[in-house]
Amino acid sequence: MSSRLYHVPLSPFCRKVRLVMAEKKLEVELVEERYWEKEPDFLRRNPAGKVPVLKFGAMMMAESQPICEYIEEKHPEPALLPKTAEGRYEVRRLCAWFDDKFHHEVTANLLYERVNKKVTGEGYPESRNVKAGAKAVKYHLDYMAWLLDQRRWLAGDALTMADFAAAAHLSSLDYICDVDWNRSANVKDWYAKIKSRPAFRSILADQVPGFPPPPHYADLDF
Amino acid sequence: MSSRLYHVPLSPFCRKVRLVMAEKKLEVELVEERYWEKEPDFLRRNPAGKVPVLKFGAMMMAESQPICEYIEEKHPEPALLPKTAEGRYEVRRLCAWFDDKFHHEVTANLLYERVNKKVTGEGYPESRNVKAGAKAVKYHLDYMAWLLDQRRWLAGDALTMADFAAAAHLSSLDYICDVDWNRSANVKDWYAKIKSRPAFRSILADQVPGFPPPPHYADLDF
Repeated sequence: MSSRLYHVPLSPFCRKVRLVMAEKKLEVELVEERYWEKEPDFLRRNPAGKVPVLKFGAMMMAESQPICEYIEEKHPEPALLPKTAEGRYEVRRLCAWFDDKFHHEVTANLLYERVNKKVTGEGYPESRNVKAGAKAVKYHLDYMAWLLDQRRWLAGDALTMADFAAAAHLSSLDYICDVDWNRSANVKDWYAKIKSRPAFRSILADQVPGFPPPPHYADLDF
Repeated sequence: MSSRLYHVPLSPFCRKVRLVMAEKKLEVELVEERYWEKEPDFLRRNPAGKVPVLKFGAMMMAESQPICEYIEEKHPEPALLPKTAEGRYEVRRLCAWFDDKFHHEVTANLLYERVNKKVTGEGYPESRNVKAGAKAVKYHLDYMAWLLDQRRWLAGDALTMADFAAAAHLSSLDYICDVDWNRSANVKDWYAKIKSRPAFRSILADQVPGFPPPPHYADLDF
């Protein structure tokens, strides 16, 4: 089954799909997609005009969470959702926390202001938004630290999709030096653990023209 | 098992949960929550500070899609997700379409500008946003019409969570007369079918002080 992911390197939603597929050892060809140019070919693949879009066997799929749920159902090993309904709820709640709340309050204010606006030609960062993002990321790191005080991984004692959802956002922000890893020792330990997984290698090799990553970005001993 | 939903009447995310629970004949006490006042008690129930929040047995739950998935797992009859992984993917994709894209392009621009800003004391509607929402809703109605040309319900030949996600947004907009039902006969037929279900009764009885609904809102023969 040949798979192809239309993506942009720093998109946390694309990264979540890449991490889930890599953890399950599913090969996928990566194709960068300038989705903001709204090419008719791309809009045929996904009328929503967003990445990720995944060609997976005969399916052409959009929306990162439904994609990840489908992959989990078709390739259940290694499991990235717990066995109990309560456990699955907590993973899905945290995926929504990062993909909705964290995305809106942090990723959009920092990454999209600093990088996406330049790449897509939309102009300069709005400093008010950057300030709001820099303030909000602290609150979110503290929330993660609180969860990790009680749990080995974000949603419980096993690695799940929720860790990949969070790591997808944080790794994209780390690429532009917007995460203060000294704020919490257990968040840093968690990120060190997840960053050293083989599934993370492709993420750490990403390069965006005009935005070289800082030296610590790909360093497992950051 | 006594359930309680902290909600606001016109929130499409709360309405989705109400519709899914009502379709499964699960009783729930509705408690209006002035979430924008960020009362400490409410933030303890959901640190994300949003509605819906559902007390369901021993669980205190947030995020409408994870809530609906949990309810579906614990109360699988009548089924609101299909039996195949491909079918479930399509339902989840459409839920994400309405809760993310439609919400951002339409609901936020119309309902939040016209109603939420007044209720929460944020000020007056921004006419640029209202115009953008009025334009976008046409595109979305056409997309629904295209789906319903090929299918009895939005995600296939059976009623699913996707229909409730869509109907939750459209019913909230219909409360403020922002849906042109004459644009597409099959979208209107679809809404007439879903509106006449017993699960819809509580939605049609909603009243927001200062915003009386138009006569056609609760009329099954609109």
